[in-house]
Amino acid sequence: MNATIREGLEWIAVDWGSSNLRAWALDRHGEVLARGSSQRGMLGLTAERYEAALLEVVADWLSDDDAPVDVMVCGMAGARQGWQEAPYRQVPCRLESLVDGAVSPPTLRESRLHVSLLPGLCQPRGREDVDFDVMRGEETQLAGLAALEPALSGWACLPGTHSKWARLESGTLDSFRTYLTGELYRLLAERSVLAHSVGEDSLDDPDCRGTFLAAIDDAVERPARVTQWLFGIRAIDLLDYGLPSDESRGRLLAARLSGLIIGLELGAVRQDLADGEAVSLIGAESLCRRYAVALEALGYPSRTLDSERVVLAGLRQARHALHS
Amino acid sequence: MNATIREGLEWIAVDWGSSNLRAWALDRHGEVLARGSSQRGMLGLTAERYEAALLEVVADWLSDDDAPVDVMVCGMAGARQGWQEAPYRQVPCRLESLVDGAVSPPTLRESRLHVSLLPGLCQPRGREDVDFDVMRGEETQLAGLAALEPALSGWACLPGTHSKWARLESGTLDSFRTYLTGELYRLLAERSVLAHSVGEDSLDDPDCRGTFLAAIDDAVERPARVTQWLFGIRAIDLLDYGLPSDESRGRLLAARLSGLIIGLELGAVRQDLADGEAVSLIGAESLCRRYAVALEALGYPSRTLDSERVVLAGLRQARHALHS
Repeated sequence: MNATIREGLEWIAVDWGSSNLRAWALDRHGEVLARGSSQRGMLGLTAERYEAALLEVVADWLSDDDAPVDVMVCGMAGARQGWQEAPYRQVPCRLESLVDGAVSPPTLRESRLHVSLLPGLCQPRGREDVDFDVMRGEETQLAGLAALEPALSGWACLPGTHSKWARLESGTLDSFRTYLTGELYRLLAERSVLAHSVGEDSLDDPDCRGTFLAAIDDAVERPARVTQWLFGIRAIDLLDYGLPSDESRGRLLAARLSGLIIGLELGAVRQDLADGEAVSLIGAESLCRRYAVALEALGYPSRTLDSERVVLAGLRQARHALHS
Repeated sequence: MNATIREGLEWIAVDWGSSNLRAWALDRHGEVLARGSSQRGMLGLTAERYEAALLEVVADWLSDDDAPVDVMVCGMAGARQGWQEAPYRQVPCRLESLVDGAVSPPTLRESRLHVSLLPGLCQPRGREDVDFDVMRGEETQLAGLAALEPALSGWACLPGTHSKWARLESGTLDSFRTYLTGELYRLLAERSVLAHSVGEDSLDDPDCRGTFLAAIDDAVERPARVTQWLFGIRAIDLLDYGLPSDESRGRLLAARLSGLIIGLELGAVRQDLADGEAVSLIGAESLCRRYAVALEALGYPSRTLDSERVVLAGLRQARHALHS
């Protein structure tokens, strides 16, 4: 198995996150030969430890007697506190040109790897409703989307800890916004007074789904009341009004919390979308489904793209551009 | 000194919080002979430890040979997970009647204390804009305000971890709302990605004050954008645009965060206030000043009452009602 990988390996793709890294061994057709991952994300590494952390995942893919293997990396390895800073490029920008901002970090003298770190993107305050913003890692997923669908003009959403909404115009990333949605949800669910009340919800449960959508509607219609309704989740739990006594209570309250926080985001997003405008979602499947359900209820169709497919398309496009 | 207290002691007032307790020794005129406090709040106590925790603070005030001393307690000692549950009374309610819901918790057989725990208040969902809500401790402060100013009709605000806004009508608490403002600020400032960027702000600094008020305005005018602007605090810090490089940067970003979160609360509150309506603020001095500055900028005059004065007025009124 490993011999097959070593023989076929042409280059390595890496998506380096804050808490983990994912790597793919690719052949000369850009097809995946193998996958690897580890928990050695940016937050746990100092600059001099990156190469070893990468080798932990990919060493078995390498042949000793070959030239150094090209590694194309997106994400936090290029952050200021990463392996080496690949300075932000500014939007609007052509996503096919990200690689113009790639840097090669220091590696061991006889390294088996030749590494390129792709830049993130920044947005200065400018035109109306365009505020200071940054992304690092998502730009490569968006470049992948643009590579797969060069004519696409519309909004792409990457839900998550720091949800990104990006406006694409035929391969140009025109502007974007980041919402603190996922982080806010987790802080409230795990570290606030709500932690005692909120469980794990599931949109497969019709009551949860209904509660989630009602909360979406509340937050979209009356965003100023959200910090009151957040406390209300605790009040409802203490007062026992009309809630089941079993673990389904925690699920319903989680659905309420989720709907309120995502609803804040979508209420703002709605100001950017045309009526019935379709949205492209990229991310973890269950979270994208949650956003799809909410967007549909608000009148916006959406489709979900697999995040691995999209990030690999972006890294392939960058490698191709590097060698052009 | 202690002999003077023991001789003059008529009863003891206690405000028992989640993280601490405050006690006052009072004479037969209701004047304060002594103060005491400790960090033994509800969160660190089981029911059987309350009496000892209280004695730690007040034992020196007691004479051995007297009858048990009356103790009037408001706050979390009457919570379900407190000393003994003093069940919520429901609003609307006459604040002078809180004591009708007082309970006496179990004490040692030859206890030197005779304790009354005052109830909290709950609000069922009902009339438009009246949502499920609870308070415990604040009702006694509001009862104190009503005792000091029986004709008062208007909104009182008790800013804090869970900010309370209560509508008083000549001694009746008509309705109230709780906003998760203080807790949300602390979670974001200490445990989110913003923790790296946010310092301690001060409204005495004109730049901080200006930043705070601009953020209040942003959140009041466009509440749906707040979760985007929260991430923007991090983006601004990373991009270095127009910010000082020294510790004043952290202060300005703290002022921005504070303004955004308090602005969410005040944007909702504005829907309840008449133009130019005055607000009564009760709480910690610097926090009340922060709210007063923001309210004034939004066109609402306010006045601040000392929280010790107000809670003692409430406990005095309850004791008086108990003995009537």
